[in-house]
Amino acid sequence: MSSFAASEFAGRTARAQALMAEHDIAACLLTTEPEVRYVTGYLTRFWESPTRPWFIVLPASGKPIAVIPSIGAQLMGQTWVDDIRTWPAPDLEDDGLGLLIDTLHEVAPGGLVALPDGHETQVRMPKSNLDRLAQAVSLTSDAGIFRRLRMVKSQAEIRKVARACHIAGRAFARVAEIASAGVPLDRIFRDFQILCLEEGADWVPYLAGGAGQAGYRDVISPATATPLTTGDVLMLDTGLVHEGYFCDFDRNWSVGRPSAPVRNTHRRLIEATQSGADAAKPGATAATVFHAMNAVLAPGSTGTDAGRLGHGLGMSLTEWPSLIATDHTVLTPGMILTLEPGMALGDRIMVHEENILITEGDPIFLSPRAGPEIPII
Amino acid sequence: MSSFAASEFAGRTARAQALMAEHDIAACLLTTEPEVRYVTGYLTRFWESPTRPWFIVLPASGKPIAVIPSIGAQLMGQTWVDDIRTWPAPDLEDDGLGLLIDTLHEVAPGGLVALPDGHETQVRMPKSNLDRLAQAVSLTSDAGIFRRLRMVKSQAEIRKVARACHIAGRAFARVAEIASAGVPLDRIFRDFQILCLEEGADWVPYLAGGAGQAGYRDVISPATATPLTTGDVLMLDTGLVHEGYFCDFDRNWSVGRPSAPVRNTHRRLIEATQSGADAAKPGATAATVFHAMNAVLAPGSTGTDAGRLGHGLGMSLTEWPSLIATDHTVLTPGMILTLEPGMALGDRIMVHEENILITEGDPIFLSPRAGPEIPII
Repeated sequence: MSSFAASEFAGRTARAQALMAEHDIAACLLTTEPEVRYVTGYLTRFWESPTRPWFIVLPASGKPIAVIPSIGAQLMGQTWVDDIRTWPAPDLEDDGLGLLIDTLHEVAPGGLVALPDGHETQVRMPKSNLDRLAQAVSLTSDAGIFRRLRMVKSQAEIRKVARACHIAGRAFARVAEIASAGVPLDRIFRDFQILCLEEGADWVPYLAGGAGQAGYRDVISPATATPLTTGDVLMLDTGLVHEGYFCDFDRNWSVGRPSAPVRNTHRRLIEATQSGADAAKPGATAATVFHAMNAVLAPGSTGTDAGRLGHGLGMSLTEWPSLIATDHTVLTPGMILTLEPGMALGDRIMVHEENILITEGDPIFLSPRAGPEIPII
Repeated sequence: MSSFAASEFAGRTARAQALMAEHDIAACLLTTEPEVRYVTGYLTRFWESPTRPWFIVLPASGKPIAVIPSIGAQLMGQTWVDDIRTWPAPDLEDDGLGLLIDTLHEVAPGGLVALPDGHETQVRMPKSNLDRLAQAVSLTSDAGIFRRLRMVKSQAEIRKVARACHIAGRAFARVAEIASAGVPLDRIFRDFQILCLEEGADWVPYLAGGAGQAGYRDVISPATATPLTTGDVLMLDTGLVHEGYFCDFDRNWSVGRPSAPVRNTHRRLIEATQSGADAAKPGATAATVFHAMNAVLAPGSTGTDAGRLGHGLGMSLTEWPSLIATDHTVLTPGMILTLEPGMALGDRIMVHEENILITEGDPIFLSPRAGPEIPII
């Protein structure tokens, strides 16, 4: 089922278990889509359904154990996982929790059971079940193990993100086919998703953007039916998926000739991106890259409300680290980051975004980087 | 921003607050996408990013209060919510929890703070934050308030689900344009999403399906590159979104003339759907509808591993209730259900799905119901 070799998951599992041993963790419990997929390769869009909980128990040694609804047994059976325990979910009395607790008692008797915790995590089960679980086993944090592991991508993972970026790049290159003055923004959103699919996306989980005179109001809004007007800046920001891996970058266009502020802001955003890339070398921190970009943006401008100037990227649209002044994560080869500088123009903003791979030397742009001049449609 | 009038949210809020008063709940805390949107209308695809927590505090009286990352302030400002409190997320030290606790202490001093709990719920924040919250306020369950409210749709909600169903129906009607012997399944998946967008979907969060000789192996798998072959049964199951509301139904096709078992299984599935619809009247329970369908399916057949024969539908792809023998939820007008009978054919399965609205009399099919004969492509 997965396009990875089983060795990919065996390696991830071994690395996790080595770190678990350092922290006296007897088993890890994984409950969210990327966590489950990271150690199993289990890839399905069925996570869109919030109904059923899914559990992976990673023992101190050996393969992961799947404790999952019976509807997933066939597909999980195509992964490298051998031990698949199922219940007929949904069960209103005991939705897998008894089976999970039995499994944890079996593989980690009396030991610490670790859940991913901290920034960007959640436990995907009802609160009362989590409370009951906490009574039955000794829960602890995974000490950031899955954060550390997932931040550094394998060559096989990097190829998938790069391919997602190429697909999005080809779609962005065709935007003039679908966007011009007079076309409603919601039609552009719909047609852009079609372009992404035509260029090879498996699906398009994320599309946001905006349009407005000399900038847009935010970067997370759905589209309205308002048609593009000459003088508008159009921005499209997409996270499309190729074999379970995301890209996440945007592009800006000027509808007709750009005003001087729009032109200059776009140039400044590209300059900030370059400055961020120049700083994004092994040994530097996420904060280093933030400051490199912010130094270009800050003079004469207020920031946006985005809260950061980029982030990690991979199995999820956004991952650790955050490009903020307080994130001291040290960059290492194999990390994939977005560089996402933004600037305010009065009550409007403009945001640019590229995706880079940290290497031993200069980073590699995975997205087909934009030039300093805002393109005209 | 929302296509609902503010009265829609005022009504939802008032109904929630009336039930909160019955349970001595001083405030509800909502953390997930549909919960937040239910009382605010806040609609964005930005939930695809797992990074930032979002909080809505619903006091005992008055409008909901948004405690959210600053990146969402502009968009939340377009809803009916007035009191919007923000922090510059992500904050690695305190990602909104301090602001949330201050807000809860202010609006519900010493009172019970209720979280949705039980089947199909989760709390969308890191576990350590939930633990800290539990130290700071008195947490309790919402006693199923949001389950009860969300299960019964307003006329405005019903129109949106109906429109989503119509859009998907038009896309399903065009499948012969994209699927025939020799076409790889992954290309069909991609092209079917394009059809959904062309017919008016805002986006296509869910598509699954399968293809194989005399049935498929499950209903949640992503597509492989295997081309369709004469004798295959193709199934596509989509949850597309119109203005924040889902449809969720499928269609089967035979590639070339169907075998007798395939033809008969399809007829039986349609018969089971009819039987379920006949039973789906006010006063009946989810279990009644399950038994009505199961009585048609069970003779001479084993079931699938799906775990249920349908479910609720609305702001999420799947919602309460579950059509299982143990779900005694009483049906009331305004509920929207999927009827999703499945049957095994040896090691393969076939599944059919339609969407219905519970009314005072017979249910209304929101999906353009399929006939007994499996269509041929």
